[in-house]
Amino acid sequence: MSRMLEEIRQQPRAIERTLRSALPEARRLKRHCAARRPRLVVLAARGTSDNAAMFGRYLIEIATGIPVSLAAPSVSTLYGSTLDLAGAMVVGISQSGESTDTNLVLERAREAGAFTIGITNEAASAMARLPDQVFLVRAGREKSVAATKTYTGQLLVLYLIAWALGAPFDVDDLGRIADSATAALKLETTIRARAERYRFMDHALVVGRGLNYPNAFEFALKLMETCYVVAERFSGADLLHGPIAMVGNSFPAFVFAPPGVTWPGQRELLGRLALLKADTMTITDRGNGDAARHKQSIVIPAKLEDLYSPIPYIVPAQLFAACLAEIKGLDPDNPRALSKVTRTM
Amino acid sequence: MSRMLEEIRQQPRAIERTLRSALPEARRLKRHCAARRPRLVVLAARGTSDNAAMFGRYLIEIATGIPVSLAAPSVSTLYGSTLDLAGAMVVGISQSGESTDTNLVLERAREAGAFTIGITNEAASAMARLPDQVFLVRAGREKSVAATKTYTGQLLVLYLIAWALGAPFDVDDLGRIADSATAALKLETTIRARAERYRFMDHALVVGRGLNYPNAFEFALKLMETCYVVAERFSGADLLHGPIAMVGNSFPAFVFAPPGVTWPGQRELLGRLALLKADTMTITDRGNGDAARHKQSIVIPAKLEDLYSPIPYIVPAQLFAACLAEIKGLDPDNPRALSKVTRTM
Repeated sequence: MSRMLEEIRQQPRAIERTLRSALPEARRLKRHCAARRPRLVVLAARGTSDNAAMFGRYLIEIATGIPVSLAAPSVSTLYGSTLDLAGAMVVGISQSGESTDTNLVLERAREAGAFTIGITNEAASAMARLPDQVFLVRAGREKSVAATKTYTGQLLVLYLIAWALGAPFDVDDLGRIADSATAALKLETTIRARAERYRFMDHALVVGRGLNYPNAFEFALKLMETCYVVAERFSGADLLHGPIAMVGNSFPAFVFAPPGVTWPGQRELLGRLALLKADTMTITDRGNGDAARHKQSIVIPAKLEDLYSPIPYIVPAQLFAACLAEIKGLDPDNPRALSKVTRTM
Repeated sequence: MSRMLEEIRQQPRAIERTLRSALPEARRLKRHCAARRPRLVVLAARGTSDNAAMFGRYLIEIATGIPVSLAAPSVSTLYGSTLDLAGAMVVGISQSGESTDTNLVLERAREAGAFTIGITNEAASAMARLPDQVFLVRAGREKSVAATKTYTGQLLVLYLIAWALGAPFDVDDLGRIADSATAALKLETTIRARAERYRFMDHALVVGRGLNYPNAFEFALKLMETCYVVAERFSGADLLHGPIAMVGNSFPAFVFAPPGVTWPGQRELLGRLALLKADTMTITDRGNGDAARHKQSIVIPAKLEDLYSPIPYIVPAQLFAACLAEIKGLDPDNPRALSKVTRTM
């Protein structure tokens, strides 16, 4: 069994541990923000952590109304520009804590007067020393190059940061996310059987919207790095602005379709894909009848609000990528051309 | 000849007309910003216009130090969140001016206290009435569904907006951009001949960095919508954080490699791609010796700074997509499943 699959299964416990350990930090941050509400939040990251950052971007804007920007690291690392970040909160996210460009963004932001936060898995890393406050993801060492449990751990920490910024969640509801991840893990046998059908897939399209848009990026990244599938990722709206032209008969598409405000648009998109005779798998909810009845749907076995769907919804996607890699005879723990810590500027 | 190709050729004149007509507006904006410098700039758009917005994001941060965020329209259109945008400048970009979600973002931003700007090609559109200030792209009606001359026109307006925000450009240098676009158009014959080789290409990778990162998105979008090529787009740094695993022998890659601060990283990336035996075409400059000597390079016939490279560098990419579509027997003016005005929420 791949380490990736082991680590996918460890997620409910990793989420519980992270929540327990990060809650006192979140309370401290909440006190800080009550006195000095940031006027802007900037999130900086690369790779899977950048997909988590994108989730933070949606969550914080939706739940707190504070504008959020995803940092373009090259603005400071290559162009040497100094941003006016007084009154801003800048959050760096890195599994290893050794992502050179993300750390440089944090350093420059601190010099520019921002309050800085690091989210990392590694207590001994550069990122754990650098910022004003550190949130540790307690996922345990991640050995597979393909990140899974650190992604969901980062998402959990971002819920807590949104809460500290004033998002009206109940912290007890966050405690139930681990249970819904456990429920999603029960899909493993179904997904393994389903993945057989995709043995020869070499390209694909992954679509999400709103809070599940970052999951489309993360699923596509897993397909690229572990299965060598050329996987495109779009929001439903962006797909219609051009890229849908490439979708023809049998084009493999994967669509996140949780319940809630994004469902009407995603349902319409599923209709478009059906007309184009695309080959679509949907990750959805029993409540979304049209999608749930489709023979290729993965139905999440828990009743969830959109707000709490991103962690349980990525689980079947991770399982799918890990199983498909194995079926294709690839080693998802050690993709060609990659190592665990990537340093870029 | 396709309308797309005609419209590509019209770009130098469209840029000149846009510059002439937008300059007085830019002067007016400069006076406004001198009195009330925005603390944040938010750019909202979809499709090709969103690629222009991404350029604006890099340009404004690099040249003015004001933090920039790319709007996630669903935050307001679907989730109904009200962002705290007092003191911000919000810029909507839409070729048709009828992009419902972009216009809604502008409307909500204005209610939230932001100064709002619209960039559109259509003087009679909703976007030309809604915001506090309007910049018209004087490209003439764009008939091809694949946007080209409106993209470069939008880029030109974004230079002017950055100038109004305090970027230290010389407006006379902007006048020379049309000449470098003219020089780039001279590559048409070379590119047409080169495109033959790609007749059977069905997937590709496009890489840019910094100010040319948005061009990677735009080139990939043109390949998707006019040639039905599954085209991935990445920054050089993001590619190394995972997706490079999918690149094997003969994988088609297109790399923007202008001179300047992004060149050392792009040169390193070209080395990685060569080791992986990818099939790489580079759009570059005579000065970048290693890349310019490569037999599959497109060498821009003008000496340019990185700052002024994005408009002339997209021209060969547009020509390539238009020629390849024709070679593949497709109609780039009317891609399947698309119409000129796309309305999404």
